[in-house]
Amino acid sequence: MAYEGGGSILPLKMLDKCIGQKVWLILRDDREFCGVLKGHDEYFNMVLQEVKEYELVENQRILTTRHSILLNGANILMIVPGSEPDYDS
Amino acid sequence: MAYEGGGSILPLKMLDKCIGQKVWLILRDDREFCGVLKGHDEYFNMVLQEVKEYELVENQRILTTRHSILLNGANILMIVPGSEPDYDS
Amino acid sequence: MAYEGGGSILPLKMLDKCIGQKVWLILRDDREFCGVLKGHDEYFNMVLQEVKEYELVENQRILTTRHSILLNGANILMIVPGSEPDYDS
Amino acid sequence: MAYEGGGSILPLKMLDKCIGQKVWLILRDDREFCGVLKGHDEYFNMVLQEVKEYELVENQRILTTRHSILLNGANILMIVPGSEPDYDS
Amino acid sequence: MAYEGGGSILPLKMLDKCIGQKVWLILRDDREFCGVLKGHDEYFNMVLQEVKEYELVENQRILTTRHSILLNGANILMIVPGSEPDYDS
Amino acid sequence: MAYEGGGSILPLKMLDKCIGQKVWLILRDDREFCGVLKGHDEYFNMVLQEVKEYELVENQRILTTRHSILLNGANILMIVPGSEPDYDS
Amino acid sequence: MAYEGGGSILPLKMLDKCIGQKVWLILRDDREFCGVLKGHDEYFNMVLQEVKEYELVENQRILTTRHSILLNGANILMIVPGSEPDYDS
Repeated sequence: MAYEGGGSILPLKMLDKCIGQKVWLILRDDREFCGVLKGHDEYFNMVLQEVKEYELVENQRILTTRHSILLNGANILMIVPGSEPDYDS
Repeated sequence: MAYEGGGSILPLKMLDKCIGQKVWLILRDDREFCGVLKGHDEYFNMVLQEVKEYELVENQRILTTRHSILLNGANILMIVPGSEPDYDS
Repeated sequence: MAYEGGGSILPLKMLDKCIGQKVWLILRDDREFCGVLKGHDEYFNMVLQEVKEYELVENQRILTTRHSILLNGANILMIVPGSEPDYDS
Repeated sequence: MAYEGGGSILPLKMLDKCIGQKVWLILRDDREFCGVLKGHDEYFNMVLQEVKEYELVENQRILTTRHSILLNGANILMIVPGSEPDYDS
Repeated sequence: MAYEGGGSILPLKMLDKCIGQKVWLILRDDREFCGVLKGHDEYFNMVLQEVKEYELVENQRILTTRHSILLNGANILMIVPGSEPDYDS
Repeated sequence: MAYEGGGSILPLKMLDKCIGQKVWLILRDDREFCGVLKGHDEYFNMVLQEVKEYELVENQRILTTRHSILLNGANILMIVPGSEPDYDS
Repeated sequence: MAYEGGGSILPLKMLDKCIGQKVWLILRDDREFCGVLKGHDEYFNMVLQEVKEYELVENQRILTTRHSILLNGANILMIVPGSEPDYDS
């Protein structure tokens, strides 16, 4: 049996639990995405729908909305399940 | 059985669904490509046709059109299926 | 039998011992996280709860609290088990 | 059976079709090569003949010609089959 | 039999010999750690105890002491077994 | 049978043909090496003899000669078989 | 049989021949090490003894001597067998 990890909530299992829910993704270059997680693979590549993309351009936070995207997992720093930033409020 | 991922739309399955359709690719260095997806492999290497390439050079967006290209998947940040940027309008 | 390593406390075994306890994570880009370790895999990807995130922005240490996160292990420089920074005191 | 990819033109199959033809390669650092593709492997390492190398040096495009080269595939951003840049015209 | 290397002291065997002893680790970004090696794996991930961390901040060498840490092996430039820097003297 | 590649001159086969001959190597950081190829492995790690190393230092091309070297293949951008730069003329 | 490479002196075989002899290592960041090679593995991780480390700091070459070190092979640019720099003369 390959080594799976330790603890009660394994990383990929946590992602499985987020399927169909909102996730907030923060990338290494500070780009942020928020959307409903539709699917993922073992490399944290992710399919999101109803997507909001936040990008800092000259200290301005630019919002772009997209219907759905496939995001390359290699650039993801952190995934915050079940929540989104309050930049729009 | 190797672990495939979780959710209703797995990343590679989503790419399969884009075959023959327009995809909009955004790279890590902010280059953007838009074209018809003809084929892909598991590393997100992609064959595109009727390709528009957008590159920001000194704040000017330069458009280059190409018949077909093979794009190295390692540089892809995000894939936006079935859509394209409206920079030309 | 695959080579596991040497010594009385193997890295992954140490992580196993931290399950349910506070860990302080320092990333390569100097971001710091502190939270209860709920799970991890062999690549140091980690599920944390009751999370404090410290980020240096123009020499100011910004604190963000989050309920739970999944952190990509590739960016982790160091894990300090059972402790947290005293920036709040 | 290992996963090969999706679509009518798989990336490596496209390269196979370019054997004996001109290809135009654009690297991540903006260097460009154009030559006849004589062979390749699965990592996009390529053997080119009748090679033109274009390099931007202080906004000047420098052309170097070489009989044949072996190019490391890891630096390739994009391959444009059957065409070449019109910098010489 | 997988290739193990050559010579009388193989890298991982050397690490094995350092178990329970002081090691001085120099990272690629010039951070330095010194502590007792409690365990390691094949990727040079290391468990250290009685740890001194030296970091150069604006030409000042800052010392931080920690009870124990798990250090990601990917950032290690060099391991100096059985010795420590004399910055404190 | 593992996939080997396509075309009449596969990359590693081309290297095999260069054994005993002069090769000119250009690295990603613009360092250049020229010497007789004595051996190589599948990662483009190379053993060269009668070696000339060219390095640009403040726009000056510095030549260093060495009897033999082992060069790490990961930094190689391009291999030009059977030729050398004419910087000395 | 796994592919080993081509030529009369394979890279790892060359390292084997250096066991017990002086080697001069030049890293990607221009740090240099010179010492007696005691052992190595397939990733060019190396155990050196009687080590001289040369580091350029503000155009000054700083020499540090160490009894023995384990050097991470990933940062090595080039290995010059059986020789050392003449910086001390």
